[in-house]
Amino acid sequence: MNRAEIIDQIHKKSSLLCVGLDADINKIPPFLLELEDPIFEFNKQIIDATKDYCIAYKPNIAFYEALGPKGWISLQKTIDYIPNEIFTIADAKRGDIGNTSLMYADTFFKTYNFDAVTLAPYMGEDSLTPFLNYENKWSIVLALTSNESGGDFQKLQLDNGEMLFENIIKNISRLGTSDNTMFVVGATRAADIKKVRTLVPNHFLLVPGVGEQGGDLQQVINNGRNEDIGLIINSSRSIIYSGNDEDFASKAADAAKLIQLEMSNFL
Amino acid sequence: MNRAEIIDQIHKKSSLLCVGLDADINKIPPFLLELEDPIFEFNKQIIDATKDYCIAYKPNIAFYEALGPKGWISLQKTIDYIPNEIFTIADAKRGDIGNTSLMYADTFFKTYNFDAVTLAPYMGEDSLTPFLNYENKWSIVLALTSNESGGDFQKLQLDNGEMLFENIIKNISRLGTSDNTMFVVGATRAADIKKVRTLVPNHFLLVPGVGEQGGDLQQVINNGRNEDIGLIINSSRSIIYSGNDEDFASKAADAAKLIQLEMSNFL
Repeated sequence: MNRAEIIDQIHKKSSLLCVGLDADINKIPPFLLELEDPIFEFNKQIIDATKDYCIAYKPNIAFYEALGPKGWISLQKTIDYIPNEIFTIADAKRGDIGNTSLMYADTFFKTYNFDAVTLAPYMGEDSLTPFLNYENKWSIVLALTSNESGGDFQKLQLDNGEMLFENIIKNISRLGTSDNTMFVVGATRAADIKKVRTLVPNHFLLVPGVGEQGGDLQQVINNGRNEDIGLIINSSRSIIYSGNDEDFASKAADAAKLIQLEMSNFL
Repeated sequence: MNRAEIIDQIHKKSSLLCVGLDADINKIPPFLLELEDPIFEFNKQIIDATKDYCIAYKPNIAFYEALGPKGWISLQKTIDYIPNEIFTIADAKRGDIGNTSLMYADTFFKTYNFDAVTLAPYMGEDSLTPFLNYENKWSIVLALTSNESGGDFQKLQLDNGEMLFENIIKNISRLGTSDNTMFVVGATRAADIKKVRTLVPNHFLLVPGVGEQGGDLQQVINNGRNEDIGLIINSSRSIIYSGNDEDFASKAADAAKLIQLEMSNFL
């Protein structure tokens, strides 16, 4: 999917919402466990219920991988089920030496046909470039993450006065372009989003951490928007686990609609 | 597997060798492709041929993941086939927010029953601690990697005079102990191994990059050994792809034996 198509979705739906498909076999409504593929059935109903309010879905690969080979089958069925016009992100946080990164890129961009994959930058340039050579596919690189310890290393001060995440954003934004690279900046770091925006005025930012993790939506949008809006804001648990009974999907729809409405007020 | 058992293997076999099981469907001998599970068949023969010369196997997860669900079945069969006394490392380079790292830990330590998993440190303490709570399991954290761009960020100078990788080693060695944590230091960075050893005199180091990537064995051992030896040295492509015909396994055995002999000279 290209940049124009993402922006088109944002305007059509008046939404920046990405729904995180962290389908946890221990958290989905128990009645689903009797079905043949409970994880896919959960996702299918969540997708049906939320697809009008969101512009992206982000399966967290850990939750599928933990189920063994059948988890990957549930993942494949989920990807195939997501409507084509909605952006898909493999939240995988990969990154390895060149020949291995090539394999990971093939996995997510070809085998599973995701539009984007999240990447960890620690191994440097040649661990990331293999992902940048696919047309209309996106690398979403960790910059400043939403977890409590996110700052442990990301905010270390370098001898030139920069923080580590700033150096990483500067260098990686030169490797790719704003047509194939985004950065992850946690919603729990709303004050820092402004700083990131000055470093990469044109790039899209993927912002997780709204909802369960406590990030503030208004602050994120005010600090992070650019002229194309340039934000994809993820919420996982506070949408998909809104209910735990037969009506879980309609409760997820309500939660997604509420966030979408709030977003549309700020757009 | 605990530390004493690893050291016991090293002395019994007079070897530090880890064989990297980077089984690539495009590189394995073509005659295997006619079999039902070519990847497992390849690994099985490699394991039979090399198990007397090595103390560890390290499947590179990217190569299995790229094959879709059936790749994970090949991986499971491979793990089950490796003799119990040999250390197993999932080369996965994972790391995510706490609840997700928990899933990854479960995947590699329980679902697939690996002894160890490689981890990327960028997300900080709470992305790593979930892996440290499993008894007799190991976290192997990236410090200084063997790829050409490894130094891009890892060697950035901090305002306190340290390089980033030194800060990471110091902080992470305090999180775990030398009984559950190792560090990755590329063989292509032999001069830096000495520096790492002074930071963590007791920890095991996993050293990839000997062979295809050009690292020097003697220099690695001289600079990196401690009183328990404390080194696991990985070679992948230069062993497993020694041959491309029906005799590929015996050629792999020759290559592994040669490295083991060289190692035993330095021990």
